[in-house]
Amino acid sequence: MHDKSSVVSDKVAAHSGDPAFPLHHGGKIEVRPTVRIRDNEGLSLAYTPGVARVSQAIADDPELVHDFTWKSNTVAVVTDGTAVLGLGDIGPEASLPVMEGKALLFKEFADVDAVPIALTCTAVDEVVDTVARIAPAFGGVNLEDIAAPRCFEIEAKLQERIDIPVFHDDQHGTAIVVTAALMNAAEVTGRTLADLRAVVSGAGAAGVAVTNMLLDSGIGDIVVADSRGLVTADRGDLTPVKQSLAERTNRAGITGTIEDAMRGADVFIGVSAGHVPEPVVASMAPQAIVFALANPTPEIDPAVAQRHASVVATGRSDFPNQINNVLAFPGVFRGALDVRATRITPRMKVAAAEAVAGVVGPDLSPTMIVPSPFNPRVAVEVAGRVAAAARADGVARL
Amino acid sequence: MHDKSSVVSDKVAAHSGDPAFPLHHGGKIEVRPTVRIRDNEGLSLAYTPGVARVSQAIADDPELVHDFTWKSNTVAVVTDGTAVLGLGDIGPEASLPVMEGKALLFKEFADVDAVPIALTCTAVDEVVDTVARIAPAFGGVNLEDIAAPRCFEIEAKLQERIDIPVFHDDQHGTAIVVTAALMNAAEVTGRTLADLRAVVSGAGAAGVAVTNMLLDSGIGDIVVADSRGLVTADRGDLTPVKQSLAERTNRAGITGTIEDAMRGADVFIGVSAGHVPEPVVASMAPQAIVFALANPTPEIDPAVAQRHASVVATGRSDFPNQINNVLAFPGVFRGALDVRATRITPRMKVAAAEAVAGVVGPDLSPTMIVPSPFNPRVAVEVAGRVAAAARADGVARL
Repeated sequence: MHDKSSVVSDKVAAHSGDPAFPLHHGGKIEVRPTVRIRDNEGLSLAYTPGVARVSQAIADDPELVHDFTWKSNTVAVVTDGTAVLGLGDIGPEASLPVMEGKALLFKEFADVDAVPIALTCTAVDEVVDTVARIAPAFGGVNLEDIAAPRCFEIEAKLQERIDIPVFHDDQHGTAIVVTAALMNAAEVTGRTLADLRAVVSGAGAAGVAVTNMLLDSGIGDIVVADSRGLVTADRGDLTPVKQSLAERTNRAGITGTIEDAMRGADVFIGVSAGHVPEPVVASMAPQAIVFALANPTPEIDPAVAQRHASVVATGRSDFPNQINNVLAFPGVFRGALDVRATRITPRMKVAAAEAVAGVVGPDLSPTMIVPSPFNPRVAVEVAGRVAAAARADGVARL
Repeated sequence: MHDKSSVVSDKVAAHSGDPAFPLHHGGKIEVRPTVRIRDNEGLSLAYTPGVARVSQAIADDPELVHDFTWKSNTVAVVTDGTAVLGLGDIGPEASLPVMEGKALLFKEFADVDAVPIALTCTAVDEVVDTVARIAPAFGGVNLEDIAAPRCFEIEAKLQERIDIPVFHDDQHGTAIVVTAALMNAAEVTGRTLADLRAVVSGAGAAGVAVTNMLLDSGIGDIVVADSRGLVTADRGDLTPVKQSLAERTNRAGITGTIEDAMRGADVFIGVSAGHVPEPVVASMAPQAIVFALANPTPEIDPAVAQRHASVVATGRSDFPNQINNVLAFPGVFRGALDVRATRITPRMKVAAAEAVAGVVGPDLSPTMIVPSPFNPRVAVEVAGRVAAAARADGVARL
């Protein structure tokens, strides 16, 4: 009865030259029944009066909500539209295509049912209250494209309020894939994470999470830079999150600019929109590793990086070694939902990174440090490792 | 990868003797992509970088959200779990099977994508705030199983806040189908609504909405009764909503009990859980019409009613003339979404009732005053009439 293509206004037709627009017409996802209702008998089981017996059973034993509803397979993909891709604060409506894209990837890669939730509010407590109030229908919350530093507080406060996993993908999805890629980049150059000193350019959601996860994973040292310079404890302008970073990083006590930190560094990880000149790249240590992840324009042109580094990765699909969050979030939630986890622990994230890195296996090479996003083993391996880690950490209901 | 049936605990197995439970295992709905992503090129259109161009276009022209996301085909089915079927205040988790059932019916009967939203909050302003904050992803809000009198205030305040239709199905869905059924019951007994004096038993969500809609449709007179007796203006215990009802009803000035009102009445509409003794039914006017809609136990046994009434309807599928909301809500939202309506007006509801009544056509008889819920013409006719009424009332965007 509903024909997506039946109504095409002039405004819509004006966009038809770009293939992304026809593909998005009418949206990219739908809600479908998993049971068929063909007659009154079916209706009386799936709806009244049969459904009342199921509802009563859940009222009597609340844990049954995981068994007899879609809750335990369903994730809310929540944004406030304040940090959408590289577009910035474009608001909830304009963020929806991205959230639908995420929902599409959740289903395609891990059979997770995901629902876009785009919020009109941005204040920390309003976001937390709103998501906590709608949580009963969901088995997890994927926070998405929420600007730093609010994203840190929202995630922490929300996780305190609800007993399902809260996972800010821009932080932890990125951190998992970067950590996996760096594990393999170290291996392919004959080193371990402990041997490496890294420079992280960018101290937003991704930069903070990448730094924390690499520290948890035993990297040698990290120096973080934001738009004002190196993040060091003597700066008077640091947010609490950056202050905490400063205390845990730069054990070498490097001072000066990001150029000073890059000199002799083993690893560059760019999660900002900056630009690193070629002489600075050339000043890195031998067998340098460059992850220039800014999209669409990497901080260092891959062709330039290649002249000075042993391993180069970007966020783009048209170069080798694409650092793509889709390697992480579908499997992370698949594993968390499979055991009805109450949260995502650091160990679950490290397990996910190890799984992503491990899938590469004998194909490991300087131009293959992460698997293809279309490798069907990725989500399976990640899910299995994440589920096991959840059980080990005592956060699994099953 | 996800196998609904793989995990069956003892608690789940304990319910397997009732076919409603296996049918509900793992839930009744899923989110599916409507576009296929098979390779990097597809990924780069449906997700980054292609999706960024669509998001930017919506940021530049917010109306495009209706064209390039699922918003204009999607309804939030929102409950606070306080008045679920006949079960009462069983909470948000236990309400979920009902909300999923509703979503299933939305898709099956009208190709509307519906998302269950079960709220932990019940205070009017908290419910309104929460739903208003998540509204951007949706083209409509179906309120469901929210207790009276909060449901009235929530619907009115929420509709003031958001520019998509808000429709409390327990009120208006019921009212539309009752009105349609009564139009046909009048016709089949050679009368019009103006000829009829009705007694409505129950002044909750359904009773109030049924009364208002029948008054709007020109019924002769109505007397409303709640659990304390007739709703008349001289009572000191009336809520504002009941006070307003009292002022618009009982033009005949009947006093006493519901039995007094039933004497000589043409129509009984039961939307409570009460019981009407046979002598009271026998005291109604000739060619009486009895709608005993309480579920699972009608206020008057249909076999008893049949002895004294010309037309008998219930809420049950195992008797003729089932008054079932599924005759209304799928088509109402289909029509509203098709023209991107900003609200549901009284004229749109009357149009829906006329459409439901009209579908019966030449099959009209005392045991066929409403169409079968499986008649595929119902939602089509309702949608068409509702869309036309939305345009006539100036609340359509298309």
